Amino acid sequence: MMCMALSGLGFSQTGTSNLIPVPSEVKFSDGKYRLESTFRVAITGSPDERIYGYATRVLRRLDGRTGLFFAQDFLSAKDNDPQASLLIQVGRPGKVVLGEDESYHLSVAGNQVKLTAPTDIGAMRGLETFLQLLNADEQGYYLPFVEINDTPRFPWRGLMIDVCRHWLPLDVILRNIDGMAAVKLNVLHLHLTEDQGFRVESKTFPELTRMGSDGNYFTQEQIREIIRYAADRGIRVMPEFDVPGHATSWCVSHPELASAPGPYTIERHFGVFNPTLDPTKDATYQFLDAFLKEMAGLFTDEYMHIGGDENNGKQWNANPDIQAFMKANNIASNHDLQAYFNRHILDILTKYGKKMIGWDEILQTTLPKNIVIQSWRGRDGMMNAAKNGYQSILSNGYYIDLIQSTDFHYLNDPMPENIDLTPEQKKLILGGEATMWSEMVTWETVDSRIWPRTAAIAERLWSPSSVKDVEDMYRRLDEVSLRLEELGLTHEKNVNMMLRRMTGSYDIQPLRNFVDLCEPVKIYRRSSTREVSYTSYSPFTRFVDATRPDPEKARNFNKLVDSYLGSRDKNIAKDIDACLSEWMENHAKLAPVIEHSPILKEVQSMSDDLLKTSRLGLEAMNYLNKKQKAPKNWSVAAMEAIQNAKKARGQAEIMVIPGIEKLVQAAAGK
Amino acid sequence: MMCMALSGLGFSQTGTSNLIPVPSEVKFSDGKYRLESTFRVAITGSPDERIYGYATRVLRRLDGRTGLFFAQDFLSAKDNDPQASLLIQVGRPGKVVLGEDESYHLSVAGNQVKLTAPTDIGAMRGLETFLQLLNADEQGYYLPFVEINDTPRFPWRGLMIDVCRHWLPLDVILRNIDGMAAVKLNVLHLHLTEDQGFRVESKTFPELTRMGSDGNYFTQEQIREIIRYAADRGIRVMPEFDVPGHATSWCVSHPELASAPGPYTIERHFGVFNPTLDPTKDATYQFLDAFLKEMAGLFTDEYMHIGGDENNGKQWNANPDIQAFMKANNIASNHDLQAYFNRHILDILTKYGKKMIGWDEILQTTLPKNIVIQSWRGRDGMMNAAKNGYQSILSNGYYIDLIQSTDFHYLNDPMPENIDLTPEQKKLILGGEATMWSEMVTWETVDSRIWPRTAAIAERLWSPSSVKDVEDMYRRLDEVSLRLEELGLTHEKNVNMMLRRMTGSYDIQPLRNFVDLCEPVKIYRRSSTREVSYTSYSPFTRFVDATRPDPEKARNFNKLVDSYLGSRDKNIAKDIDACLSEWMENHAKLAPVIEHSPILKEVQSMSDDLLKTSRLGLEAMNYLNKKQKAPKNWSVAAMEAIQNAKKARGQAEIMVIPGIEKLVQAAAGK
Repeated sequence: MMCMALSGLGFSQTGTSNLIPVPSEVKFSDGKYRLESTFRVAITGSPDERIYGYATRVLRRLDGRTGLFFAQDFLSAKDNDPQASLLIQVGRPGKVVLGEDESYHLSVAGNQVKLTAPTDIGAMRGLETFLQLLNADEQGYYLPFVEINDTPRFPWRGLMIDVCRHWLPLDVILRNIDGMAAVKLNVLHLHLTEDQGFRVESKTFPELTRMGSDGNYFTQEQIREIIRYAADRGIRVMPEFDVPGHATSWCVSHPELASAPGPYTIERHFGVFNPTLDPTKDATYQFLDAFLKEMAGLFTDEYMHIGGDENNGKQWNANPDIQAFMKANNIASNHDLQAYFNRHILDILTKYGKKMIGWDEILQTTLPKNIVIQSWRGRDGMMNAAKNGYQSILSNGYYIDLIQSTDFHYLNDPMPENIDLTPEQKKLILGGEATMWSEMVTWETVDSRIWPRTAAIAERLWSPSSVKDVEDMYRRLDEVSLRLEELGLTHEKNVNMMLRRMTGSYDIQPLRNFVDLCEPVKIYRRSSTREVSYTSYSPFTRFVDATRPDPEKARNFNKLVDSYLGSRDKNIAKDIDACLSEWMENHAKLAPVIEHSPILKEVQSMSDDLLKTSRLGLEAMNYLNKKQKAPKNWSVAAMEAIQNAKKARGQAEIMVIPGIEKLVQAAAGK
Repeated sequence: MMCMALSGLGFSQTGTSNLIPVPSEVKFSDGKYRLESTFRVAITGSPDERIYGYATRVLRRLDGRTGLFFAQDFLSAKDNDPQASLLIQVGRPGKVVLGEDESYHLSVAGNQVKLTAPTDIGAMRGLETFLQLLNADEQGYYLPFVEINDTPRFPWRGLMIDVCRHWLPLDVILRNIDGMAAVKLNVLHLHLTEDQGFRVESKTFPELTRMGSDGNYFTQEQIREIIRYAADRGIRVMPEFDVPGHATSWCVSHPELASAPGPYTIERHFGVFNPTLDPTKDATYQFLDAFLKEMAGLFTDEYMHIGGDENNGKQWNANPDIQAFMKANNIASNHDLQAYFNRHILDILTKYGKKMIGWDEILQTTLPKNIVIQSWRGRDGMMNAAKNGYQSILSNGYYIDLIQSTDFHYLNDPMPENIDLTPEQKKLILGGEATMWSEMVTWETVDSRIWPRTAAIAERLWSPSSVKDVEDMYRRLDEVSLRLEELGLTHEKNVNMMLRRMTGSYDIQPLRNFVDLCEPVKIYRRSSTREVSYTSYSPFTRFVDATRPDPEKARNFNKLVDSYLGSRDKNIAKDIDACLSEWMENHAKLAPVIEHSPILKEVQSMSDDLLKTSRLGLEAMNYLNKKQKAPKNWSVAAMEAIQNAKKARGQAEIMVIPGIEKLVQAAAGK
């Protein structure tokens, strides 16, 4: 018998929708549009040039999936036949700015697919929907007949990537931009400066990267490439220069900017550190004026992020000159001093034509109303901003580095129906951003923390608020996750690669089976563990790094248990037994692998515990099937084993233990 | 019972060497150097700065494999403790030029690893050997005690990558440079211009890429990055500008350079095309002078490759002006006209301080002796060059795009013992280059055509000629292939990704099992097939693209058959039966997968044929076990089924059929 939690996917034959994000309006009807090698795309209207490249890439992705050898090569303005298989009608070139029209109408009917959009950016969003409609049956590839009217709920749908804690090179950024486009996100927020590294070239102050980056930074040409690449996909690129805190890497080459004497070296650990820019010196603002002027010319987006988070104030408190300055200027607190700093920065940004955005901490009601608040500490920050007349975006609840479950992020609505805001205040909520802080990821693992969960956040920010069926989201997420691979994303394929490295072997199935039941510890437990002290040069190649958040197989097993305990259905019981037996058998194969792979020793007892608790689970099922209450001494011993099995090892934990625990509790009559 | 051909690897506990290339001298002894988290590296002597980065990367790779959390972060000149765990002593900075000293001495003994090298490039080669020594036992990670003296047999050990037929972006090149360094290759030859695309930015003639590249080309900054990245690994970068043939992409923007009137468009098909530069016009040389002057400044290597291959002469024959020019100048043939052209190019290159290299066709004994010939058409070209006093490198026999077996390439010695050359002539043979022509690969599949086979070619060019044990090479190749993954190479991990795309499913094991028994058709059969017409925009995402050359499992099965037929060993018989039974069972799982994946329909009958022939193989084994001769009608039918099964479908073929055929023939008494 096969463990039902270990099922695959395959083309959906059911006619149900695999679309993610779910469109505003979608109506399927009977009928199939069949794809043939004669399939051709035409574009009419007044698009931007970039749509030809976008449509060509879509054509190649479609051909890649179907192997049909489409005859059409590279699209150009000459491809304007109104009878084409896919006719794209575009009103005007879209602007890559906040609030641009991204709506589209997509119709699959008869012998033609028609995509109509006011802007070419809307057409791009529609093309991704078009690709998601691909299905297959015994006769071949087809798209179901459908009418779609679609427009986003929020205009700001972002992904922040921290390229500082761990350097993430250009190819990581580019492939993630493609992933963003595939799920209709439209803002890439690059966190470019941090204690651990200064990641953007300044030609005015080349020493910033020369001394503060270990050679790992984006050149200005690379930044322009990122901006162009993103703009070609209708995606804004917003830079963040985090000030006045998180500023160690600035101070390595410019200790005079800091609020305490240097020298400074690049920070290798993670956390909140003391180095903070000195807000009382003219020289600080002269420096920032020159730097931000240069960056304002490099980055084309109208918004510039100044960070502003987690200034611990220690250097300010300890500096007598700063204390004297505060007294002389009637500045009562560090928060007020930071507001003083922010006002100067705002003046600089305004001078260079940029709008200011920052984390929660920059909110000071003395600041003008044209700044934007990014709420990370809690929804209250966002609410507070709105009530004070500030625009805001939500990131609290979208911290994808914290390994929380997809449904947690998915149900985190920036503007739930019962929100205590006036209609005017609601308009100030622009959307949200998933945040990929990079303390615990490298170029090998970062995709697996971003995807597929970020697709669920993308749906939350695009789709109507009424779309919140968690089960249906998970079903569609599996499909989109697989399809994201064609963009070069590594969230799936790097798992086995890492297991091969750990074992020095190609024969990794037993280990993979175990990995698929585990996940990293959540929230900040990994960085605060006493077992190891993580730095920017630690190995992120261990068991925990190969596990992924919210593993499907574990989730399905726990669901199966709930379903069984609700129904006592005998068929479900068989499925549960099959899973538990499979894990016991797997342990027999895994134990020698661990024995020969020292890097896996740290999870050896965890695999033992899965064996023990699986056996207990089977025994519990036996009691439950027989409708017997388990003996007390069995129950006590079983619950103790469960508690042991719950303990994290190597900063990873087994996610099926809660399901097994429920079986044991039920058998114990609790 | 398990099919023995389907075994994995795991850390070698046997004390045998996994080194590739095999060093000149290597002597293992009893004892183990144990790795701990206290492991530290120091560098003394007079190295180039780049060695600190190289050693840091090695440290991180080692930590990645072992998860030991080494305390040392980024190496610098301060790390010079002579008691360090690994002490690297370097004589002088190495020059990244032909013939530089790459030797090293590596000693693992007692409590220290010592690496001594005359140049830091030699130290890099030694560091890769050091990494390959990593092993593990129940106590943890260790290196076996060993003394190694190593120096390369040939000074020119290259990999050519054609980035023209299919565009291969920067990250493909960079990760392959890392792969080259891991197996001690030292020349990256970039084929930069072709009929299908002009792939390097010229600031003098920006129209070359603007009109001739579809936007897919290396900027000069990227070229500088490639050169720097390679130099940091002791690898030369030699550019090729292919003239006068293969020149379509030049002529798109500069039709006046061609030998026939334009207009020209970028070529989408593959083969030998007519567009050829006009060797009779001064304007051609003025253009090439300006262009090559610019490129001579951009590329730092002393060699510049001018291609020169496959000029079909059609435009020359058809152009009355060119014919008149030949008559007026007593030029008897197109070959002589090309020599006239080459002499002009040589003058230009010499003026700009470069040495000339070209394919076989440039050899004309009237040319001076300081040019280098790259032999692709046959070993005769190389011999002929040497006999006429020209230096040469061998590529014939190293065409890795042709899907030939690893042992074929491996045993292709540029200078076998019995070679008919004088000692002086032998000195003219500099080495060889694997050539990755890219008609049939994309960024997704190119690594799988380069690796791991190129590691065997690297060994041929580095190790003593006496190292030629094919079985041992294959054993070590599996290990190096796995270790190459840590460099980001995708030869292994992209296979499953492609299978997931084909099936739209995560459940790909039956398909993978089948893929591992198949390979693409060899030599030029794929491009000459009538089933499909390949272009630069065709889908390379089909079954054939997921198969790989010389699949291990098929090779092992065929070997098992030979072994059985030689020995009639009953244990081997059981292994063979297990494989055949496994494939029959696999077909039952695979058939419905194919049924639901239209892109796989083209190999449906091939899977059926594996089922049929596996059954015949089992029947043959039954006759052989019973020492019965099979009935004639069975034999006739079986051989017919075998012939059918041998047929390629979808440009792929089953590689275990020859093994099964031998069983059937043996059973038939043949």
